[in-house]
Amino acid sequence: MRETWIVGAASNRFGKMAETGREAATRVAFEAIRQSGLEPKDIDYTFVSNCFGMAEKQGHVGPLINGGLGIPNVPSCTIESACSSSSAALHEAFVHVAGGFADAALVVGVEKLSQLDTLTATSYFAEAADYAFETRNGATFPGLYATLANAYLHQYPMRPEVLGSVAVKAHANAVHNPHAHFRKAISMETYLNSPMIASPLRLYDCCPFSDGAAAVVVAAKESVPHPSMEPLVVRASARAGSITDMQDRPDLLGLPATRVAAEKAFRQAHLEPRQIDFLEVHDCFTIAELLALEDLGFFPRGSAGKAEIEGVTAHDGALPVNPDGGLKAKGHPVSATGASQVVEIFEQVNGKAHGREVPRTETALAHNVGATGGSCSVHIFSRR
Amino acid sequence: MRETWIVGAASNRFGKMAETGREAATRVAFEAIRQSGLEPKDIDYTFVSNCFGMAEKQGHVGPLINGGLGIPNVPSCTIESACSSSSAALHEAFVHVAGGFADAALVVGVEKLSQLDTLTATSYFAEAADYAFETRNGATFPGLYATLANAYLHQYPMRPEVLGSVAVKAHANAVHNPHAHFRKAISMETYLNSPMIASPLRLYDCCPFSDGAAAVVVAAKESVPHPSMEPLVVRASARAGSITDMQDRPDLLGLPATRVAAEKAFRQAHLEPRQIDFLEVHDCFTIAELLALEDLGFFPRGSAGKAEIEGVTAHDGALPVNPDGGLKAKGHPVSATGASQVVEIFEQVNGKAHGREVPRTETALAHNVGATGGSCSVHIFSRR
Repeated sequence: MRETWIVGAASNRFGKMAETGREAATRVAFEAIRQSGLEPKDIDYTFVSNCFGMAEKQGHVGPLINGGLGIPNVPSCTIESACSSSSAALHEAFVHVAGGFADAALVVGVEKLSQLDTLTATSYFAEAADYAFETRNGATFPGLYATLANAYLHQYPMRPEVLGSVAVKAHANAVHNPHAHFRKAISMETYLNSPMIASPLRLYDCCPFSDGAAAVVVAAKESVPHPSMEPLVVRASARAGSITDMQDRPDLLGLPATRVAAEKAFRQAHLEPRQIDFLEVHDCFTIAELLALEDLGFFPRGSAGKAEIEGVTAHDGALPVNPDGGLKAKGHPVSATGASQVVEIFEQVNGKAHGREVPRTETALAHNVGATGGSCSVHIFSRR
Repeated sequence: MRETWIVGAASNRFGKMAETGREAATRVAFEAIRQSGLEPKDIDYTFVSNCFGMAEKQGHVGPLINGGLGIPNVPSCTIESACSSSSAALHEAFVHVAGGFADAALVVGVEKLSQLDTLTATSYFAEAADYAFETRNGATFPGLYATLANAYLHQYPMRPEVLGSVAVKAHANAVHNPHAHFRKAISMETYLNSPMIASPLRLYDCCPFSDGAAAVVVAAKESVPHPSMEPLVVRASARAGSITDMQDRPDLLGLPATRVAAEKAFRQAHLEPRQIDFLEVHDCFTIAELLALEDLGFFPRGSAGKAEIEGVTAHDGALPVNPDGGLKAKGHPVSATGASQVVEIFEQVNGKAHGREVPRTETALAHNVGATGGSCSVHIFSRR
């Protein structure tokens, strides 16, 4: 298996895009390729994620992006795994490059949903749950994650400020991230006074719908003798699934897919959680961050909230989590989210995370979940 | 690179499915795994294609299928490349297995569209073209392929019976295929009297919308010491793209993506067209079959029609093409089509193509196109 690097990673500002998805995707792809020191003609395969292309009446978007990059004969495909789509695409790119099938591959995730009303967007999102047994019965994602939160709080009762501390931290970090949807700090009081969406989840427990695009260039070490920026070595690229329907799971304390993917990833990387310097985790709802930190093995079950409250996970804490603001405040343009986590790690390692710098950047982990854990990807990176 | 085999391949009957896509996909997946001699627990990765999951309000279908197979922790993703989705998925499975990242992988393509009215289905299909420059201006696929046909017939004038011979042959073959949507022979007179859809393409030049599901199990030779059925050795798995918009292409005689993918595939396989015994090609419209046979290098430009008229491409001819009835008569359940081409090759090699047997089954090629050639996959198989 060849040593595989991330040699470029770029994002636009999440929020509301005036341009179409294909344009935004092409723009960030160009920027990621430019950073790498490669040229578009060096790309051997393009993996696109764009779950909600239907919102723009555009499927099969890979050839359009490649056409825009001036490489129309390069093969492409679109990869969907709900909210973990672009980390699933990154996994394919990794397999192609590490396996020697491509010297360089492009991963680009893009979503443009802001033209939809909230009810329509919510129903599109809900297609990632089980239509027959969940969605059709009214279970959209705020309700499903509220169920996970209730199960957790039943077992580990805690003050509302614990969930709130995840949101307050996310917003504080996003102030310093030029890619973030919400560059606005919130107080605990604002959190506590925000409207209840699906008890116990309040408005500020929920990530927003965002437009956005993010791209990553994956290349074999040997194809990039002189990278323009400090590359990330892909130490592990692992994925797993769980039973989709929550009612069929043996318990609701955590997501089985995260546990399985994390175990694979740490084994691949020959690393343990204590050796990871900072994390990007999938905080579509605040409860999801607590579950992730425990499923990934960083904290015992029921104790991640204490670390959040105590500032351990702040960008300058002992274990920074989501220094970019996370899905909660950076935003969640579904198919761009996984790639954008890698953008943050790349910027941290390259000294471009002004105001939100983490203390140590030797190793980092990115965790991206599809739906309520039907899919999960875990990537581990280190400096060369 | 490890020697990689197709060890199981199954399809349901194309046409109109009463069951949901996820059920049909799970059923054919079980059958393909059963044929292989493996068990579901031996599957390391599941690649699903389901372009029009939105028609069933179901995305993220991989975890549902894996759940049904009893392997919920196995990772999955959904791969879209318009009508070439499941051959793109097969390419990913090949890369995972040949590269040593998986010992066995499942590819399953499924589509259920029969619940939609024709106009809605046509507009869904058209999302695979360029929305801004083609679809929005009314160019759906019958019109786009009619443009290709007009360009071809302008350069190489020929009688309507030439296109008709492709349709008549497809229907004759499908009579003997229990998986086919239309098991009904048609006469040339029926063809010539059928209504014009988009001149010069008549009703019988166009493939139908079909529901359907097809699955393929890909495994490393070394993981299947005793295959239950005669495996197909994957000699080449190649993909390419073209400029999506036809108005931007240098010429309309053929699809550039087919030419590029074919060149890669023959090079990988160390074979030439004359060494291929029979073919599955993407005949979404009759003109597409002529273009494919020429782009793939089997006939000089402008001469494939003569071979069709003379019976060279009949199932018992010198170069059988689409012995299963092709997209035209077997049907075109978009995301199942590429996998179903492999099902036909597997059945021919295993002596299960009663009534449509081809004379020689040492080598075969499968050609699957996305849209008007924005994407193309070419696979070459041989007996071990």
